[in-house]
Amino acid sequence: MERTLIGKLGEKVGQEVSISGWVDVRRDQGKMVFFDLRDRSGTVQGVVLPNSPAMEAAKELRNEYVVRVGGLVNKRPEKNVQVGKANGDIELEIKAIEVLAPAEPLPFDLSAEGFNLDLATELDHRALTLRHPRLRAIFKVQSVIIDSFREFMKSQDFFEFQAPAITPATAEGGAEVFKVDYFGKSAYLTQSPQLYKQIVMTAFERVFSVNKVFRAEPSATTRHLTEIVSLDAEMGFIDSWRDVRDMSEATVRHILDEVGRRCASELAFLGATLPVMIEKTPTLSLTEAQEKIFAKTGRDIRGEKDLNPEDERELCQIIKEETGSDFVYVYGYPTRQKPFYVYPNPEQPEFNEGMDLLCRGVEWLSGGRRVNDYQQLLEHVEKWQMDPKKIEMFLEAFRYGVPPEGGFAFGAERMTMQILGLKNIRQASMFPRDMHRIDSLLSGAPAETEL
Amino acid sequence: MERTLIGKLGEKVGQEVSISGWVDVRRDQGKMVFFDLRDRSGTVQGVVLPNSPAMEAAKELRNEYVVRVGGLVNKRPEKNVQVGKANGDIELEIKAIEVLAPAEPLPFDLSAEGFNLDLATELDHRALTLRHPRLRAIFKVQSVIIDSFREFMKSQDFFEFQAPAITPATAEGGAEVFKVDYFGKSAYLTQSPQLYKQIVMTAFERVFSVNKVFRAEPSATTRHLTEIVSLDAEMGFIDSWRDVRDMSEATVRHILDEVGRRCASELAFLGATLPVMIEKTPTLSLTEAQEKIFAKTGRDIRGEKDLNPEDERELCQIIKEETGSDFVYVYGYPTRQKPFYVYPNPEQPEFNEGMDLLCRGVEWLSGGRRVNDYQQLLEHVEKWQMDPKKIEMFLEAFRYGVPPEGGFAFGAERMTMQILGLKNIRQASMFPRDMHRIDSLLSGAPAETEL
Repeated sequence: MERTLIGKLGEKVGQEVSISGWVDVRRDQGKMVFFDLRDRSGTVQGVVLPNSPAMEAAKELRNEYVVRVGGLVNKRPEKNVQVGKANGDIELEIKAIEVLAPAEPLPFDLSAEGFNLDLATELDHRALTLRHPRLRAIFKVQSVIIDSFREFMKSQDFFEFQAPAITPATAEGGAEVFKVDYFGKSAYLTQSPQLYKQIVMTAFERVFSVNKVFRAEPSATTRHLTEIVSLDAEMGFIDSWRDVRDMSEATVRHILDEVGRRCASELAFLGATLPVMIEKTPTLSLTEAQEKIFAKTGRDIRGEKDLNPEDERELCQIIKEETGSDFVYVYGYPTRQKPFYVYPNPEQPEFNEGMDLLCRGVEWLSGGRRVNDYQQLLEHVEKWQMDPKKIEMFLEAFRYGVPPEGGFAFGAERMTMQILGLKNIRQASMFPRDMHRIDSLLSGAPAETEL
Repeated sequence: MERTLIGKLGEKVGQEVSISGWVDVRRDQGKMVFFDLRDRSGTVQGVVLPNSPAMEAAKELRNEYVVRVGGLVNKRPEKNVQVGKANGDIELEIKAIEVLAPAEPLPFDLSAEGFNLDLATELDHRALTLRHPRLRAIFKVQSVIIDSFREFMKSQDFFEFQAPAITPATAEGGAEVFKVDYFGKSAYLTQSPQLYKQIVMTAFERVFSVNKVFRAEPSATTRHLTEIVSLDAEMGFIDSWRDVRDMSEATVRHILDEVGRRCASELAFLGATLPVMIEKTPTLSLTEAQEKIFAKTGRDIRGEKDLNPEDERELCQIIKEETGSDFVYVYGYPTRQKPFYVYPNPEQPEFNEGMDLLCRGVEWLSGGRRVNDYQQLLEHVEKWQMDPKKIEMFLEAFRYGVPPEGGFAFGAERMTMQILGLKNIRQASMFPRDMHRIDSLLSGAPAETEL
């Protein structure tokens, strides 16, 4: 008999079906045995009645056994209906069980309620803990974040390209970049597709990429990974940096909408609430933000070169109280504090047209307008004391006519973490890499890694 | 005035418009100046008439200048219509020109017809040559290949995950893997997401990924890159390897259909013809394929452990003559010639249930059924003399109930190369990396790199 997905059983009431999946939970009540059975589409309760020919097999099954099960889909009596739960109104009367693969006894409780591992143990057993509904929900949300980013970019006529991972000596970075032994020479893992996306933009006008970037900071905080998924966009023919702001805002709005729409049950299960994005996200210059914090708290940070984490938290709180918005844009940073490609405000060249989007006290996204004029770029290269040889390809692109342009980027793991309110970014990466761990702890790593 | 995309000008006949883009070609005829103007949506011919207020600016423009142009969209007189060409029936009468960014004189002819660089020079100037219609067409096709792979996987209920790039010491590989200096320890760049996709499959049942893989073979042939985009799929609850075959066939069919539908003009411009996939792709065991080659050519390769490139070409030719199909599946390789995870045929365990899809003489895709039984996996690990410590996470996934499963993979660059009939895989990678080149030639690379 053809397989029916568990999520479709509601359409088969009164019919004999065959399903395939895992034993999620087994409750042996002596005369009867109950199972929760799981496949990619959902779970259903099954029951083996006394005297059923399946009873002998049912007694052998344990959690995580893989089975093919034949049975009859019954409506549950009114009093047993679990309202609001998928398949809460049906039950599978199991008549035949075939074991497709056995499972060894689980090393810990993997049930939805009983799962309670510290993060290090969860990561040590990633191959198994991935099956837990909590983890599957987190990575479902992450896949929707990435998918809806791509979907929105395509709807806005952006071209997807594949940014490289291996780079030659880079102009930026330094100690914080991973070195690769490249046929006896040195190459490096990319820290950002920034220069590549600007190059590709000069040919395709609107471009985006979803790609790995690598950070070699020797830091083991709750916010650091060495390998992250970067979502990047770049667009030509802007009139001002506000076009970039607007595009990034529309992108985040679409992502939030899609996560809300496609992940309602995951959000509920994880106890997460989407942040509020109002019609027009408040947008302040760094100077205005500093004034606002000073006026509200008396803490005088005016003239500082950037917002520190405390400033970011306070600003978000103030904006939330004033407008209801969980988001706020901050733009106009001191020009020399930022990379050479960020566009200085022509009327006030000591401040640039770079921007950050903050939400719930932390940065979600960065971007801004870029320098597109070749002569101005050359001046910046000199002022920033960079070696033009190291960005020769980038400079070549800008030698031949590049429109006013800008772009933005954000990390998939951080956005996942922030949307879901996770405490540690390692929970938002399926196979997190940090300075002490690649799948398992590296030899010589401290036993008590800060997590 | 709001910008109109060049591709939409046909809807604006008789109206004043503002467009933005690059000067693709400039033809100064003295009294009149003609331009081809280009943006992301297409090209259009513009003309500056004698006595036009735009004439002075028009005389200054050169190829690749970025401009904003105001003008009137006119229908062309019947005799000047270029049939079959986008915007071939209209012309823009240019009334105003604003230079958004100048361009230096081009170092070579970048016109559609005049472009004629050797590959090394093309790559040395990738930042500029990317603007050429030939290159834009190639990467448009590649983006459609990747996009339609993803689209089809999603339609079949596959879950997209992000496979890691940095790996710990791997069980496979050896000399052909790149070493990363990882905080004073060693890590490696992934050669394949194989073991990770199998792990994720045990939690999500059907999974796919689009990710970078790295190959450190010290080889500089026309078919080698060190960094490639791998498209990977893995599915649980198969009944036999033929389910994997069927899924991979449907995937390739969808990709070909989409390339045909979305890239018709690019294929025509590149002079490429899509390969023919008949209703049911011929499928032969290795033994049958060898018999067929022997019967047809008299060359006796029966009993060899694999098909060599000559065999692959001949087999494809024979199948094409016999059936009209450009594709052929070959399955059933000697078990010990392939990795430990490939499933042996239970009735003939010396042959496995791995498969390759060949087209036009070369391999396009590989896959097959995997060993899902934990005890059998342990036996294989021993027979293949592998260190189980090095695949501990993988083995843990299989300890707890894994359904019969299989999957497949292919490289985006190779498929792009083969669909378009390109001679060198470097043409199918936007920023190709090989042993002598990362963007520019590495110091000490031979001047005459084999391309």
